[in-house]
Amino acid sequence: MNNNPFTKNDIKVAVVGGGTGSFTMLSALKNHTKQLAAIVNMVDDGGSTGVLRDEFGTLPPGDVRQCLVALSDTPKIRDLFNYRFENGTFGGHSFGNILLTALEKVSGSFSGAVDTASEILRIKGKVIPATLDNVRLKMEWPEVSTILKGERVIDAYYFKHDPRRARLSLEPAAVANPMAIAAIEQADMIVIAPGDLYTSLGPLLVIGGVAEALKKTKAICVYVSNLVTKDGQTNNFTVNDHADEIERFVGFKFLDYVLYNQQEPAESIARKYKADDEYLVKIDKEALLKASYKAIPGDFLGESAIDNKSDKLFPVTRSLIRHNAEAVATALMSLYDSNS
Amino acid sequence: MNNNPFTKNDIKVAVVGGGTGSFTMLSALKNHTKQLAAIVNMVDDGGSTGVLRDEFGTLPPGDVRQCLVALSDTPKIRDLFNYRFENGTFGGHSFGNILLTALEKVSGSFSGAVDTASEILRIKGKVIPATLDNVRLKMEWPEVSTILKGERVIDAYYFKHDPRRARLSLEPAAVANPMAIAAIEQADMIVIAPGDLYTSLGPLLVIGGVAEALKKTKAICVYVSNLVTKDGQTNNFTVNDHADEIERFVGFKFLDYVLYNQQEPAESIARKYKADDEYLVKIDKEALLKASYKAIPGDFLGESAIDNKSDKLFPVTRSLIRHNAEAVATALMSLYDSNS
Repeated sequence: MNNNPFTKNDIKVAVVGGGTGSFTMLSALKNHTKQLAAIVNMVDDGGSTGVLRDEFGTLPPGDVRQCLVALSDTPKIRDLFNYRFENGTFGGHSFGNILLTALEKVSGSFSGAVDTASEILRIKGKVIPATLDNVRLKMEWPEVSTILKGERVIDAYYFKHDPRRARLSLEPAAVANPMAIAAIEQADMIVIAPGDLYTSLGPLLVIGGVAEALKKTKAICVYVSNLVTKDGQTNNFTVNDHADEIERFVGFKFLDYVLYNQQEPAESIARKYKADDEYLVKIDKEALLKASYKAIPGDFLGESAIDNKSDKLFPVTRSLIRHNAEAVATALMSLYDSNS
Repeated sequence: MNNNPFTKNDIKVAVVGGGTGSFTMLSALKNHTKQLAAIVNMVDDGGSTGVLRDEFGTLPPGDVRQCLVALSDTPKIRDLFNYRFENGTFGGHSFGNILLTALEKVSGSFSGAVDTASEILRIKGKVIPATLDNVRLKMEWPEVSTILKGERVIDAYYFKHDPRRARLSLEPAAVANPMAIAAIEQADMIVIAPGDLYTSLGPLLVIGGVAEALKKTKAICVYVSNLVTKDGQTNNFTVNDHADEIERFVGFKFLDYVLYNQQEPAESIARKYKADDEYLVKIDKEALLKASYKAIPGDFLGESAIDNKSDKLFPVTRSLIRHNAEAVATALMSLYDSNS
């Protein structure tokens, strides 16, 4: 096995995360470096992905598909991967998910499937499943003997207890994909993409081997802070609350920088997401000044034209408010330049 | 639209037909010429293809898929296209069919879908749907007022009347794909692949514009004779009976050559296909001597290891006995050499 995720002479960036957040970061970063590795969360078990996992016993294709599409420059094949059958036999399934499932069946391995899909999509960079183990997410509050099982269940849950006292783990215990470890160890910069703390970022960071690789790496580690809170899970969380949780998952302080948005959204947009009980992540400047990482503000709000909850068969809740990916990518690159 | 199916300086071959017969011819011919066009029958409405047509209102992907796979040299992606889901939501569907259906939905046209699939499979040559009209096959015996409708129905029918007195047509009347016309007119050699007379070759040859193109072309026209008869449809048909029907579909004599097999199969194989009421097409040497085309015998029997009727959900009857495609391709090429 070739454990070299980076091949060209360019800044080596590993983006850690899951669906939309990684998609956004990768879409912009691919224009800044040819050495891009997307390390992808593998606990999704809802929607089209969940049905495919249950039926075929395969690994979750959804987040991987989004990262592949982000790194592809062939519009027709991108559109094909994103195509979602509206009804009938394939109703609600995204074509890319079906393709990854079929490829896993044909090639006998999920990493083989990802490699062939990468060829088909002619992607820049590399998409790396964080683990190749077939696992489910578990979240438990030992003090109150509460256990939640399954990403879909946890994602939809309105927490009754403080999640900061909960323990995230995978069942069975997962080992990191060696290629993911190599990417973390060899990267010049590691970007923790914005994403759900308890169903996307956490489940990736707790995989066996990830913390050790983060300890070893010489990369600059940056968390691009979430823009909005998730109702029922991270209400009232500040930027540093998010960063603290990320470091708690890993077990030690590893973040060098946190990029956070300071821009106010338009009133019309603010109204829309308040209707979904989504609120901008608060900035506690004093806490950020005391933090072990350097907190860097920026104007990172993007256009918010994405239609929400439009999928009838497998509804997904996605935030209306998005990062201006190009502004974030530029900030990340200048961070790197100022360090080298 | 670029109506040039041939692009390189090599013998231009157009293969006319449908599924397995075209697959076999194309698989061998692609090693002899880079200028290969597969003109594909578009009336299939059975099995996975039929379900997809009914559900999505798209054109039939099955035969096109087989020709695409024949012309592809990327084994992993070929395997993906041929992968058939065994059970569950997608049970019985071949992945390539799903892909072509999704691509037609995404690109808005079947020819766009075929072009993108050709890119994905990196095929040699060009696959050309014979028509882009959404049609169904009709077979009628005017003298006895019998009408059969639909390829699947006709394919399964045990004819009560002589099919040579029947009229094949498409509903609604189809116009040939301009690219198919161009391929026929520009070809150096047209190969009518072995195939079912009434559900594969006939339905293609009766498309509006095909006869006119065959009249105009300067190509050598060769029919590679079927090896076995189809029970209930062509029992006792000889080689020249097959050739006569092909010319009847077109409306005039256009065949320059008929290649037929003279080799006897092994006893064990003969027994197997007799169990399915399939018999070797008989050779009437006197009739062949009197024919307007030149009949050329050869040892064309191939290995017959293909498993028959193995598909439980959408069973397909395929002959156990196959052409030695390489031997046929070599014979075709030497035919061309002796003419040029």
